[in-house]
Amino acid sequence: MVLSGVEVSKHDNKESCWVVVHGKAYDVTEFLPEHPGGMKIILKYAGKDATEAYDPIHPPDTLDKYLDKSKHLGPVDMSSVARVEEEEDPDEADRQRRIRDKPLLTQCYNLMDFEAVAKKTMKRGAWGYYSSAADDEITLRENHEAFHRIWFRPKVLVDVKEVDFTTTMLGTKVDVPFYVTATALGKLGHPEGEVVLTRAAKKHNVIQMIPTLASCSFDEIMDAAEGDQVQWLQLYVNQDRAITERIVKHAEKRGCKGLFITVDAPQLGRREKDMRSKFTDQGTNVQAGQETDNSQGAARAISSFIDPALSWKDIPWFQSITKMPIVLKGVQRVEDVVKAIEAGVQGVVLSNHGGRQLDFARSAVEVLAETMPVLRDLGIEDKIEIFIDGGVRRATDMIKALCLGAKGVGIGRPFLYAMSAYGEEGVQRAMLLLKDEMEMNMRLIGCTSVDQLNPSLVDTRNLGSHITGVPADNLGRTVYDPLATPAFKEPKAKL
Amino acid sequence: MVLSGVEVSKHDNKESCWVVVHGKAYDVTEFLPEHPGGMKIILKYAGKDATEAYDPIHPPDTLDKYLDKSKHLGPVDMSSVARVEEEEDPDEADRQRRIRDKPLLTQCYNLMDFEAVAKKTMKRGAWGYYSSAADDEITLRENHEAFHRIWFRPKVLVDVKEVDFTTTMLGTKVDVPFYVTATALGKLGHPEGEVVLTRAAKKHNVIQMIPTLASCSFDEIMDAAEGDQVQWLQLYVNQDRAITERIVKHAEKRGCKGLFITVDAPQLGRREKDMRSKFTDQGTNVQAGQETDNSQGAARAISSFIDPALSWKDIPWFQSITKMPIVLKGVQRVEDVVKAIEAGVQGVVLSNHGGRQLDFARSAVEVLAETMPVLRDLGIEDKIEIFIDGGVRRATDMIKALCLGAKGVGIGRPFLYAMSAYGEEGVQRAMLLLKDEMEMNMRLIGCTSVDQLNPSLVDTRNLGSHITGVPADNLGRTVYDPLATPAFKEPKAKL
Amino acid sequence: MVLSGVEVSKHDNKESCWVVVHGKAYDVTEFLPEHPGGMKIILKYAGKDATEAYDPIHPPDTLDKYLDKSKHLGPVDMSSVARVEEEEDPDEADRQRRIRDKPLLTQCYNLMDFEAVAKKTMKRGAWGYYSSAADDEITLRENHEAFHRIWFRPKVLVDVKEVDFTTTMLGTKVDVPFYVTATALGKLGHPEGEVVLTRAAKKHNVIQMIPTLASCSFDEIMDAAEGDQVQWLQLYVNQDRAITERIVKHAEKRGCKGLFITVDAPQLGRREKDMRSKFTDQGTNVQAGQETDNSQGAARAISSFIDPALSWKDIPWFQSITKMPIVLKGVQRVEDVVKAIEAGVQGVVLSNHGGRQLDFARSAVEVLAETMPVLRDLGIEDKIEIFIDGGVRRATDMIKALCLGAKGVGIGRPFLYAMSAYGEEGVQRAMLLLKDEMEMNMRLIGCTSVDQLNPSLVDTRNLGSHITGVPADNLGRTVYDPLATPAFKEPKAKL
Amino acid sequence: MVLSGVEVSKHDNKESCWVVVHGKAYDVTEFLPEHPGGMKIILKYAGKDATEAYDPIHPPDTLDKYLDKSKHLGPVDMSSVARVEEEEDPDEADRQRRIRDKPLLTQCYNLMDFEAVAKKTMKRGAWGYYSSAADDEITLRENHEAFHRIWFRPKVLVDVKEVDFTTTMLGTKVDVPFYVTATALGKLGHPEGEVVLTRAAKKHNVIQMIPTLASCSFDEIMDAAEGDQVQWLQLYVNQDRAITERIVKHAEKRGCKGLFITVDAPQLGRREKDMRSKFTDQGTNVQAGQETDNSQGAARAISSFIDPALSWKDIPWFQSITKMPIVLKGVQRVEDVVKAIEAGVQGVVLSNHGGRQLDFARSAVEVLAETMPVLRDLGIEDKIEIFIDGGVRRATDMIKALCLGAKGVGIGRPFLYAMSAYGEEGVQRAMLLLKDEMEMNMRLIGCTSVDQLNPSLVDTRNLGSHITGVPADNLGRTVYDPLATPAFKEPKAKL
Repeated sequence: MVLSGVEVSKHDNKESCWVVVHGKAYDVTEFLPEHPGGMKIILKYAGKDATEAYDPIHPPDTLDKYLDKSKHLGPVDMSSVARVEEEEDPDEADRQRRIRDKPLLTQCYNLMDFEAVAKKTMKRGAWGYYSSAADDEITLRENHEAFHRIWFRPKVLVDVKEVDFTTTMLGTKVDVPFYVTATALGKLGHPEGEVVLTRAAKKHNVIQMIPTLASCSFDEIMDAAEGDQVQWLQLYVNQDRAITERIVKHAEKRGCKGLFITVDAPQLGRREKDMRSKFTDQGTNVQAGQETDNSQGAARAISSFIDPALSWKDIPWFQSITKMPIVLKGVQRVEDVVKAIEAGVQGVVLSNHGGRQLDFARSAVEVLAETMPVLRDLGIEDKIEIFIDGGVRRATDMIKALCLGAKGVGIGRPFLYAMSAYGEEGVQRAMLLLKDEMEMNMRLIGCTSVDQLNPSLVDTRNLGSHITGVPADNLGRTVYDPLATPAFKEPKAKL
Repeated sequence: MVLSGVEVSKHDNKESCWVVVHGKAYDVTEFLPEHPGGMKIILKYAGKDATEAYDPIHPPDTLDKYLDKSKHLGPVDMSSVARVEEEEDPDEADRQRRIRDKPLLTQCYNLMDFEAVAKKTMKRGAWGYYSSAADDEITLRENHEAFHRIWFRPKVLVDVKEVDFTTTMLGTKVDVPFYVTATALGKLGHPEGEVVLTRAAKKHNVIQMIPTLASCSFDEIMDAAEGDQVQWLQLYVNQDRAITERIVKHAEKRGCKGLFITVDAPQLGRREKDMRSKFTDQGTNVQAGQETDNSQGAARAISSFIDPALSWKDIPWFQSITKMPIVLKGVQRVEDVVKAIEAGVQGVVLSNHGGRQLDFARSAVEVLAETMPVLRDLGIEDKIEIFIDGGVRRATDMIKALCLGAKGVGIGRPFLYAMSAYGEEGVQRAMLLLKDEMEMNMRLIGCTSVDQLNPSLVDTRNLGSHITGVPADNLGRTVYDPLATPAFKEPKAKL
Repeated sequence: MVLSGVEVSKHDNKESCWVVVHGKAYDVTEFLPEHPGGMKIILKYAGKDATEAYDPIHPPDTLDKYLDKSKHLGPVDMSSVARVEEEEDPDEADRQRRIRDKPLLTQCYNLMDFEAVAKKTMKRGAWGYYSSAADDEITLRENHEAFHRIWFRPKVLVDVKEVDFTTTMLGTKVDVPFYVTATALGKLGHPEGEVVLTRAAKKHNVIQMIPTLASCSFDEIMDAAEGDQVQWLQLYVNQDRAITERIVKHAEKRGCKGLFITVDAPQLGRREKDMRSKFTDQGTNVQAGQETDNSQGAARAISSFIDPALSWKDIPWFQSITKMPIVLKGVQRVEDVVKAIEAGVQGVVLSNHGGRQLDFARSAVEVLAETMPVLRDLGIEDKIEIFIDGGVRRATDMIKALCLGAKGVGIGRPFLYAMSAYGEEGVQRAMLLLKDEMEMNMRLIGCTSVDQLNPSLVDTRNLGSHITGVPADNLGRTVYDPLATPAFKEPKAKL
Repeated sequence: MVLSGVEVSKHDNKESCWVVVHGKAYDVTEFLPEHPGGMKIILKYAGKDATEAYDPIHPPDTLDKYLDKSKHLGPVDMSSVARVEEEEDPDEADRQRRIRDKPLLTQCYNLMDFEAVAKKTMKRGAWGYYSSAADDEITLRENHEAFHRIWFRPKVLVDVKEVDFTTTMLGTKVDVPFYVTATALGKLGHPEGEVVLTRAAKKHNVIQMIPTLASCSFDEIMDAAEGDQVQWLQLYVNQDRAITERIVKHAEKRGCKGLFITVDAPQLGRREKDMRSKFTDQGTNVQAGQETDNSQGAARAISSFIDPALSWKDIPWFQSITKMPIVLKGVQRVEDVVKAIEAGVQGVVLSNHGGRQLDFARSAVEVLAETMPVLRDLGIEDKIEIFIDGGVRRATDMIKALCLGAKGVGIGRPFLYAMSAYGEEGVQRAMLLLKDEMEMNMRLIGCTSVDQLNPSLVDTRNLGSHITGVPADNLGRTVYDPLATPAFKEPKAKL
């Protein structure tokens, strides 16, 4: 039986809340308090069609997975269903013009270029979600700047005719020492979502880490892989461990080769730029719960899907339910790396979650430089694979990380930006540029394989110098009359 | 008998000076040389109505308290009293428009936001008074920047489901480790003055420190407290110790739970931004005395109400007149903290008076980092409670201070700005935002209670690096042609 | 007999060169190659009236002193003398308007303010001469910035009711620990020249150092002194030691109380801003000789009045010709301070000549901080008085220098700017502001007399950190989208 | 027989590719894959006249040298040859105007000034090629900034009447301790190319290093030398060692006095500014091969003329084929300097190739400061001559390098800019300015000959501090209301 829009429209409140998604009605009344994105955003669409807002945020199998079948109310006569009038974005026409006039893909020469294009061509809210980070976004920016405090001590007169920068990660041979790290909500940037990254990763033979919060479903992303393409799973641990177990086992069964448990997000960060861009009005299951005036309170809204109680005691359980190598993603101090080794996991990702969680967390590369000497002192540097992510934009960043002992680096946002601006071709070019830079810079540093990269090739004395500088002497600088270069003759008449 | 305006208007000079306040005349001739704000500002209103200028600066009980009853001349026929024509502020219409168009309160996501709104909506003079600081305002800005030289070393995989950030200060249990520190002249920002802060402090269960230089009277602020709400008294020590004794005993009797003696202001600082904003023309009992062309001389004008002779020798006397815990507010070197412990006081506030006194005083958080290791070496770190104030804007700032050994932090200007921009609701939201940030960041640093915060969680290596940087290479930077991201096509015709 | 303009005009070339100054003709043909400012600038006025260009550069007694009487040709009929058409300065009308609209003197609250006003009201060339310095002017700016790398460790609870900041310099009691240091060409800034400074120094009881290159004659400046006012002599040593001896003995006879021998200027610096301002076209005996296309070569042009061969061996000679205390002005390394003590001079001025000589010379205050510990180690810190100059703008700068061991500080440009902008009143206010700041800051640092100032009151750990910072990450910073504070509503129609 | 344009135009593709240069046709079909600049740029001109694009990039003898005689097809009837329509540069008219209005040569007071003028008067592509560097151009800028972290400790009271700054390099006496280092493609900046530099070098008695990639032929540059003028050869080593041997022996025979083997360019760097300026469209044998979409791949395109396999093992061979002193150009770590001494070469140039190869390579002056103490420890500091290049702009830079142990410094770009802006006169003035600065600064540092320059004259404590600074606190700085200097009265009516 087909429901009428009129019938649906009656259920437009907290006491009885129906929404329509892809032509079908769902009773979400009981689910309201559990919605990770908060109740408010669902109520906006109560009794109406929510498809447009729903799609970029939720994988297609979400309703099947999380909403009891009894709440699936069946098809609706869409002609009579109300739609929510979204505010028109006054910037949209300009954005379309910018998309039309954007630079050719071949004009992008480095990873920053994609970000520059994405910033001007993405929807404001999507840009806000991807680009934002915690508090003052100091850590976000420090992540890349930290690499700028590492300098090279290159060797010359080395035969570098043949350069090989392949390596292995958790046993998988890859073309180049980076992987596509997990990032949420891929459809905000591209209608096809994360599978775009899957295809590009295949072309360049690098590993993709599948995010828990993907816009595509896990299986869609797995299905997009070809041949022996390797993928890993990033996991937010659910309070309901049965769900977590189901996810992990399913991933292993589908062929995932690594389980990356996120340990730096007991609560998801507040990101003010994202809030400011009003993205929360359009709904996201990630941010909205953080609104301070949310009636549910931030902690409760989130706790439904990420378990803040996750602790070292849980590791053995994970080891009992999967044979996949386990990697802890988000470790931030050497003491915890040592603990991870003691816990018998196969790897850690030194990471601060792209600066999206704790502002003033140090960069992964700095934590790496603190970590390796300690592990070497303890003689346990080979007991674990150490990855880092955050701020990697150049092959030189990658080489610096490898010199300091990393097995590989994760790259996230740059590929999202490349995808958002130019689709799969963009991502492929981004990867190609990294490989080109890599070949060049391996030669210039005087190494022909990644195992030759070692700490003597870098000067890290300044890595720990996070100097803000004393506030500026504004008066002194105002009155100082700066030197100038010689003036050209002024054209007589400017008119 | 009602005085006529004509009669009053005759007493318009130094030899005989009457002013009208709230419909009553007062003979202030003898008081002129003692006026803390200098003689000049009173003479501006001599023989006229001074109410409008008087109100934001003086608590209502000032005249009763400080002017002998014999000088209270009684009611005046206001219809005939002259008023001082204040210069019209050409910016006032713009300011009213900005007030109308200001952001919604819910658009404020952090404490900086209130400052941004206040800056554009406050009267110039009031903004000048609140925001100004000493000399080049280096210390003012350093106070916050110093926190940016402290980084976190967070722990992961800690069960942080339940986070408790309550603590105690001088024996009082509070919801969150900050208190509302004393700031002068609350009515410049809001017509109701300091009681607005009292009410917000109650809602969030934090302590308010009552300022000597409040616009509201001490009793008004005490009366605004509800139930068992705790308040402290900030004290500028008067040369006339009888007055001081009266104030202290009255405060104790009214239930104040702490006496904070200001020790960093033997003379009140020169604040050039404040002078520049011409606020002194409108009268303040705090700044005007500093005018260099003041006939009285800066020191004498001020000495009438703050005693520059206050010294360590006075502490026992304070201990003899009150049982309230005594805290020295404004200590700036570890040697003086040790002295304070020897003197037997209960606490110190490491503070540079919000940068308003001595420019190039170091930030409180830096002094804290210098102090605690010395106290620990001496085994006396538990003999005293150490608070800091200055520059706290984020929960991360607070956490850093607590990691380094502070019992709590004082926050002043941000609440004034929130109050000036949005009234009590603004202050409440500011406090709520701090609590939300606090909960989040306690989780992210891996601690569930404030007693777990400890120095190993922070990296303070750069805290003492106050680098100004060498003057810029202007020629080199002028001729350097910076890299650019790819250009979008130019629209053919811009017209 | 009165010469006719026609007669004079015949002598307009290198072979026979006459110029007219103040109505009298002079034959300077033989003097041409010796003119410190180069031959070129004189030839510009050959056969013509040079008074206007001559006056601000030369003291009135110059011709009497340096040109043999036989070359004094007597009075000229001025009605027939040619004048050089100076190019009209297109900026002059604007400058006059700026002079009219300049801020009131009472709006100047610190020494920077005078510089801001002078910059806009002085003639371009004069500003160029006063404000310029060597090469990239890094040292010029470093001089003040260096003070910003010194922070205070103030004491509290000290009785500071009475503050005394008088001190003695070379035996003279002064009101405040600064002196007016020697600066050249005072008439560029004020028609009366250096005597303006003399009068202001008297009012504030500070010492003035009389410059060799003054616009006023030495005697004019001495004559302007009143009562027991103390003055010192700054000396550029002439290759002809007879001239030097005459100058020194005359100064001693006239009552000078100190001889400051400049040792950092064997050749006067190239100052590009000054060149760029075209000041050289208008003639100066200081700069023009440095023109690279000068036919004489820079060194020779200058060598006529400053002796580049001056060395330690000359010191005994100076000691033999005068009983005035001898101070070496321009010492820049501790080794040379030790040598100065061994040479038996009474003082040194640590100075880099206001940044006008060697760029990347370190600031005097940094050299001071390097010097005193060495002297103390050697037990010779009391054998000499150490002054510093360069970059002093605030009383806090002065206090920092005294804490580090300086006897006093020299201040130059700020008084020139105050004089140029507001005349003697300007200089007096500048001095008054310094005294007011001094009183305030002595109190705030917890000292009641200058002998209490000591190294424990300052934190100099960063003084030697001249960090330029790594070149900016332009791409990264371009693409970073900065956080913003909340937006005010946009007015609907901007038109 | 004269070929017709029609005939030529048939060979316009990969299978058969002819181009016309200076009226003669050449069959370059087989050469296509070996063209260092890539195949693409040649194909653009296939079947057409390539002269205009060919000239600035290739020395006149290129075709004779590298293309088999059998491929020289003889003269063409130019009237019928097609020319490639180059896109009109919309900026060209503006550029011509700027050339007309450029500053007088005498207005250039330092080396930066030439760069400022060149930037505005050179063709975009030429500017892009000269000014660009690797990746983010951090090293490019660091090269000069590094000198700004070195400060002087000058001596005073030294007799500096006579200053001698001549020195010797590889046995040649020179006027001043710099040489003109090798830079590619001189005709991009000036139609006569490198011979302009030859002539200027002669005038100032400094050595010119002849680049492998010159626009003029090697012999043209040698021929331009006069008398006993000394020149060196810079060498990119060819995979075909026979070619290399021929070049080296020819150079020695022609009188070259030094062989500088480039060791920091196994692959030529990617320079994004150059790519962005679209210079690659116009063809260069240096950059184009780096295009990531080049079908040949970057490495192969380049490998035809620079041998990435060059290694320490090759040094003895060079020593066997020439008696010229051998210098390794591009050494970047002390370990390799020691190796160079062991290998018995006469010198090294510490250099990062002007920042054009590996970004984040350290500045040569920093490597120098790291190197000399090690050599002195090993007692081998006199076994080799050490030169540095990169970032030298001031005589003070040169003096700093010499104080730290360099024998001399290479200067490249500044002379290119001077040449591009003002031709030979520009280069001469640039050299003159350096000499003037040198004389001045030798005096001011208290040294009369270069052998007196020593490490005690410089303060290098900060040289290794490459601090980027923590990302800016944007919110805090936005809301901070900076102090201002006093305002001038506003003109009543701006209209």
